[in-house]
Amino acid sequence: MRITDIREATAAIGSEMSNAYVDFSQMTISVVAVESDTFRNGKAVTGYGFCSNGRYAQGGILRERLIPRIQAAAAADLLDESGQNFDPRQIRKIMLTNEKPGGHGDRAVAASAVDMAVWDLLAKLEEKPLWRVLSERYSGGDHDARVLVYPGGGYYYPGKGLQRLREEMRGYHDQGYKAVKMKIGAAPLAEDLARIEAVIDEVGSGGDLAVDANGRFDLDTALAYGDAMQDYGLFWFEEPGDPLDYSLNAELTAAYSGAIATGENLFSLQDARNLARHGGMRPDIDWLQFDPALCYGLTEYLDILEVLEGLGWPRRRHIPHGGHQLALAMAAGLQLGGSESYPGVFQPFGGFADDTVVEGGRAEPGEHIGIGMEAKTAMFSEIQRLVGA
Amino acid sequence: MRITDIREATAAIGSEMSNAYVDFSQMTISVVAVESDTFRNGKAVTGYGFCSNGRYAQGGILRERLIPRIQAAAAADLLDESGQNFDPRQIRKIMLTNEKPGGHGDRAVAASAVDMAVWDLLAKLEEKPLWRVLSERYSGGDHDARVLVYPGGGYYYPGKGLQRLREEMRGYHDQGYKAVKMKIGAAPLAEDLARIEAVIDEVGSGGDLAVDANGRFDLDTALAYGDAMQDYGLFWFEEPGDPLDYSLNAELTAAYSGAIATGENLFSLQDARNLARHGGMRPDIDWLQFDPALCYGLTEYLDILEVLEGLGWPRRRHIPHGGHQLALAMAAGLQLGGSESYPGVFQPFGGFADDTVVEGGRAEPGEHIGIGMEAKTAMFSEIQRLVGA
Repeated sequence: MRITDIREATAAIGSEMSNAYVDFSQMTISVVAVESDTFRNGKAVTGYGFCSNGRYAQGGILRERLIPRIQAAAAADLLDESGQNFDPRQIRKIMLTNEKPGGHGDRAVAASAVDMAVWDLLAKLEEKPLWRVLSERYSGGDHDARVLVYPGGGYYYPGKGLQRLREEMRGYHDQGYKAVKMKIGAAPLAEDLARIEAVIDEVGSGGDLAVDANGRFDLDTALAYGDAMQDYGLFWFEEPGDPLDYSLNAELTAAYSGAIATGENLFSLQDARNLARHGGMRPDIDWLQFDPALCYGLTEYLDILEVLEGLGWPRRRHIPHGGHQLALAMAAGLQLGGSESYPGVFQPFGGFADDTVVEGGRAEPGEHIGIGMEAKTAMFSEIQRLVGA
Repeated sequence: MRITDIREATAAIGSEMSNAYVDFSQMTISVVAVESDTFRNGKAVTGYGFCSNGRYAQGGILRERLIPRIQAAAAADLLDESGQNFDPRQIRKIMLTNEKPGGHGDRAVAASAVDMAVWDLLAKLEEKPLWRVLSERYSGGDHDARVLVYPGGGYYYPGKGLQRLREEMRGYHDQGYKAVKMKIGAAPLAEDLARIEAVIDEVGSGGDLAVDANGRFDLDTALAYGDAMQDYGLFWFEEPGDPLDYSLNAELTAAYSGAIATGENLFSLQDARNLARHGGMRPDIDWLQFDPALCYGLTEYLDILEVLEGLGWPRRRHIPHGGHQLALAMAAGLQLGGSESYPGVFQPFGGFADDTVVEGGRAEPGEHIGIGMEAKTAMFSEIQRLVGA
């Protein structure tokens, strides 16, 4: 068995919205296809992957470094011990040959797209949904039939007032979501508090609202927001300060009794471990949001789960960022705390399969083979256009 | 005044050597030219820059993100308050617009090449050597006429034995170097100790030998090497563990009384600050090696110097990695501890101007305008070939 072709392309996912840090009008992602020499129904079994939003396409790194290394490897070196399927760990090692330690940024994003395609291919070759592969390999056959999901929304748009914010949140409830999320930090504190109170009024409870500062606050501002929001009993307060400012995070967790969630901008096992070691995060209160489509992929994410378990973090405290089908499959198969969801943004790549039902704030992973991208038709047709055979 | 063109290209700097982590046979870097509309002697004043070795060319990020943002900016937004020269801080801000926090990797490397070119251009417009510009702006007019330099050598080559290692070190002494550096960690401990003892015998004192593990060791191995090397009184023990494993570093500094040096694989102010906060580094003993041609550039490096000064780190404890003319100019103008040097490797980009004299382990920065790349003829001819007008 061998890989016959690896194709990559850049997809535009630009939109009008912005968070406290970036506007997304020029946003792109990389899409990858990994094609095998195994045929089913006359077609080569092919895995598909892409990287999460927010970090741009990584075509240069993919074309110049990662893909050529895989293509130059001996076919047997990419396979698991049985020789019957690919080994994502071996492929990760090969695509990162001659890459120095540290500096986990765009390279990790590029590798994530390849790794997602490899896991999709692996599950397709087993003719199983990815969540079932993960359940069998890493959860002793157990899985979650229904996964907590929340829409990553509440963005700032030009001219968006409280009324439209409420309408957006009402729309999520109508779609079956319970917990929702909104951005904070691009408006003054008083204005943000009014936005928060409007949404709490709309969704009925602070416990069903997470707020996300996208790493914008300095310590004083983070403490001021924490103090002002303390009594709302929010689901969580996300990424208050710079993602690498572990001290700020630790000072905030010492002062703020509610839950903190962070990690989407930490792209490696080493960075994740530093958050656990130095960030003051509390395994019984806080949430970890590493994104498998940014942090070198599901393969690295499995290492993160294992190492952080040794530091006292149960899998249930992980709710991956990204709102993609990979995260939903992982949450079900690895029995994580849940998954972000993008019902309305980063289209056509945001969100789950077309037939995914969300009810009471939970989604079922479905029985689609692989990651199930073929069942998200608008996305899959774009993937086919970009990297189809 | 405005920027009329920004050109970038990939240069090959492959060589046969390897350290404990990577082989360098496929290594590339990005080269950048920033051309202004100011003419001198009939030619547009142009700044040149490149990124350090080890992290590959970054053409994708340069072409798709950083350069278009600068080209789209209003000319006035790139200038300092006087309007008479460019403002590297403004240009950094503009080229990193809509880039999320965290994930400081390839993007930082790409930005470094642009930032180097901007500083070269700025100094050329002032018709001064860059070190003098830095001295005037940041050192109250003081500078170091002679800068401690050491050759980054002692690599593993296929078939390289103790004899060739000794010859290499003798060659550095013949070229005027005093302190030297060698790689460790790609051979077993006993063999590395024999290599170290041979070099100490050659150079006369452990205090003139630094050893570099390139981030390879786990804690036990780092402690074992530290214990075995304790009595050599080495110049320093470099990058013992993963560059982001601050805890490992802290445990080692608690056990090893000699100097530790690290930082070349930390690419941002945030990462540098984490090392100072969590890495157990001792400002009176240890050395910091952030590389201005990897960590977003000299502009970010100035921020690092300032923030770390506030954490107790004098400028003299910084000896930048990279062995390029920028680091030498910075060491002289900002009065750092010294600079790495590459007299024999990463050609033609490694090393200083052709007329740089090294004597007693110190180099003079010279009077060349800008960074002085024009005075390193083999390199400058390659730069001209790649990104000349």
